[in-house]
Amino acid sequence: MFVAIADALVAAIKAGRLSAGSRLPGTRSLAATLGVHRNTVVAAYAELTAQGWVYGSQARGTFVTTAPILADAAPAGTTSATRARFRVAGDDAVRTAARPLETDGSTPQSREHPALILSGGIPDLRHVPRAALARAYRRALLSRKEVLDYGDARGVLRLREALAAMLRATRGMPCSSEDVIVTRGSQQGLALAARVLVRPGDTIAVEELGYPPAWQIFRREGATLLPIPVDKSGVDVDALADTLKRRRVRAVYLTPHHQYPTLATLSGPRRRQLLALCQRHGVAIVEDDYDHEFHYASRPVLPLAAADPGQVIYIGTLSKIVAPGIRLGYIVAPRDVLRTMAAERMLLDRQGDAAVETAVAELFEDGEIQRHARRMRRLYVARRDALVRLLRTRFAEAVEFDVPDGGMSLWVQLRGRRSAERIAAHAARQGIWVGPGRYFSLAGHALPYLRIGYAGWSERAVAHAVKSLGL
Amino acid sequence: MFVAIADALVAAIKAGRLSAGSRLPGTRSLAATLGVHRNTVVAAYAELTAQGWVYGSQARGTFVTTAPILADAAPAGTTSATRARFRVAGDDAVRTAARPLETDGSTPQSREHPALILSGGIPDLRHVPRAALARAYRRALLSRKEVLDYGDARGVLRLREALAAMLRATRGMPCSSEDVIVTRGSQQGLALAARVLVRPGDTIAVEELGYPPAWQIFRREGATLLPIPVDKSGVDVDALADTLKRRRVRAVYLTPHHQYPTLATLSGPRRRQLLALCQRHGVAIVEDDYDHEFHYASRPVLPLAAADPGQVIYIGTLSKIVAPGIRLGYIVAPRDVLRTMAAERMLLDRQGDAAVETAVAELFEDGEIQRHARRMRRLYVARRDALVRLLRTRFAEAVEFDVPDGGMSLWVQLRGRRSAERIAAHAARQGIWVGPGRYFSLAGHALPYLRIGYAGWSERAVAHAVKSLGL
Repeated sequence: MFVAIADALVAAIKAGRLSAGSRLPGTRSLAATLGVHRNTVVAAYAELTAQGWVYGSQARGTFVTTAPILADAAPAGTTSATRARFRVAGDDAVRTAARPLETDGSTPQSREHPALILSGGIPDLRHVPRAALARAYRRALLSRKEVLDYGDARGVLRLREALAAMLRATRGMPCSSEDVIVTRGSQQGLALAARVLVRPGDTIAVEELGYPPAWQIFRREGATLLPIPVDKSGVDVDALADTLKRRRVRAVYLTPHHQYPTLATLSGPRRRQLLALCQRHGVAIVEDDYDHEFHYASRPVLPLAAADPGQVIYIGTLSKIVAPGIRLGYIVAPRDVLRTMAAERMLLDRQGDAAVETAVAELFEDGEIQRHARRMRRLYVARRDALVRLLRTRFAEAVEFDVPDGGMSLWVQLRGRRSAERIAAHAARQGIWVGPGRYFSLAGHALPYLRIGYAGWSERAVAHAVKSLGL
Repeated sequence: MFVAIADALVAAIKAGRLSAGSRLPGTRSLAATLGVHRNTVVAAYAELTAQGWVYGSQARGTFVTTAPILADAAPAGTTSATRARFRVAGDDAVRTAARPLETDGSTPQSREHPALILSGGIPDLRHVPRAALARAYRRALLSRKEVLDYGDARGVLRLREALAAMLRATRGMPCSSEDVIVTRGSQQGLALAARVLVRPGDTIAVEELGYPPAWQIFRREGATLLPIPVDKSGVDVDALADTLKRRRVRAVYLTPHHQYPTLATLSGPRRRQLLALCQRHGVAIVEDDYDHEFHYASRPVLPLAAADPGQVIYIGTLSKIVAPGIRLGYIVAPRDVLRTMAAERMLLDRQGDAAVETAVAELFEDGEIQRHARRMRRLYVARRDALVRLLRTRFAEAVEFDVPDGGMSLWVQLRGRRSAERIAAHAARQGIWVGPGRYFSLAGHALPYLRIGYAGWSERAVAHAVKSLGL
């Protein structure tokens, strides 16, 4: 019976009758409607969750996944799908992960890309120095056959040296190549941090609002997440201090430079307070500095890791400064932590692609990436200002927001009774992807906010998209 | 006190007084020698294990790691290492992983490559079509900026299609692009299999002898490993059947095509028996087919996954057919399993490098990889035969072996009182890396066997190296 209900719901989702993001009826009310026991409906929802069609919980409600993570239809002429004859392990954390990440870290999973993704974290890929990258890759590949061999799980030395030099020069971080490991984007950095920090049952404090893909991997490794509020000065360190009096916390996961998703920069006093607090309690800090390069205020803000490298696992990425597709990130951490991370890396995927890593190292050595970052910084600050002007002149009665000191998006509060979900759904129908507040809330609260990215497209394209939002 | 002992041992390892693979004194005897409590020595060994200098257990003995996984010396002029002010999680399984994998899947971690790695799984990298790969990469990068964007966690469609076509054509596997996901080499395939199969406490049956990097990730995900003996027809299915009568087993991990490390091909009757047995007991089969291409006997042997795709998680790699450094592998599995794997992949590293995947897809479409595989097959079979001749004519009194039907190594039994460890250590001093029996034993038994790889180097170089082994 529950299979029949699940199948009917899947058919409704596939046919578009239940659209992405829409809420399924409560189990009680659907059971009453169908005249079945409530447990039957609960079982059907559990099955749909397991299959990735829906996400959520009985407490928060059940929602239709934005797009199936894997298309289900077999191409014509090939064999039909086989079903596993064995049970697949996996807990709610994994199942939740089947929910496409409606965040900076991702785009919709369907083959059909929306025309414009305004969710925030995508750089303008038209400007990436692709020809230079292709030349550098060719040189790396042809010069030494060792780039094709098994190698160092920490990443090629040349890239670690280039990254350390960049971090010393631009972020005041006292590190050498031995303090850096190269990862597959920041997500692998988060995975390695979670694997070396979390034992099942540990508590990780996170920002509320925050970055769901990080939450998901911490949970998958067995952590309980504890939300700490954020405000216009970043995470509320007093609230964290209160929490630490009552509860043992393993680590705190933060985005202090441009808080995700609110863009707040963690203030100086709070930084000092946070470092002292975490040191006193033996709490590790996982600092996710995903777009450090794109800071437009005149005074630079150094990472927490620059102040206290013994306390911080620092995660960076080249996804914003170069491109997400090259899958390169890095971790700076105390050396005994890095050693364990390298061992974990050996188990997860052995090592990176030395040819790509060598090519990117060359682009750093030649100053190519630095020039690109400068060009993009100019471009993005102009786009930010254009979007600010547009919103202030045309949509002043619809939205309010602070102009952030950096980043690639605005965090925009909707005035009146405007619903972020409704606007996002309306936008999605026009091929525009924009992140509504709920996606960034650990508690799943529907918040009247939108995160509007402006970096990836021309001022004109962004303006056109924003005008189509129906604000 | 234990720190002083640990430091002294580290100094001895660094200075080479305690050489790679050598056994540390028992804790009891060292405590007696030093006149300290035994717990002090136990603590010192635990510290060294945590730092990756040694591996093992009190039961099996403690051994010096072949090379530190991370070099410890800071480059001149940079800051000294910072120590973490927080505890790092991790269990023995991770610590063990810090032991460099003296197996096909790996090479020593030190910067100094041995002159010749004869451990078995490295293809001849001089012949890889590097110029064609560089051209294809350039085309992929310049043609569509989407290869630089966030994309499908399953891998680019073109490569999944190319892989499915190859698997249909050469391995009789009834699959389409929807049945394949691209991974970062076979190690990520193993990691994803472990993560979707294992719940803590589950039992995974493995071949004894077998592949340590697979064991390590299964253990890391919480599995208990159960050894099943192998003989000249592959894994002993009767022994597995006996085990299944007494014990609940979640999955069996196998290398049926060219058993790792013995090169035995699992016989036809055993294949049928195995599939029926696993189906009866609801046991998943993880089939690691790491060098399927290099089979030299006239009659092809199809994977287990060709016979019963609902029962098998099939893992393949391009590390042998192209090169380890490109970090590409693939999984074929039932679609609901693949869906969970894609969700896990999102958490671990989000997605692959679409430019590299597209480039390799083009090489498949052009037949470049297939031509390369044919060339390498001819080359490797000639190298196998040359090594067989050499061993039979010059070392007949020292070794005996069967000529395997495929693969890239010989599994050689040492006659008389020859010690595999002694020969491997002697070879290592001359810059030759060869795998002694113990490395492949789950129980850690010292076995009078060597795995000698012949694929990666010219007949002459292999002959020279083998003559230097001191057989």
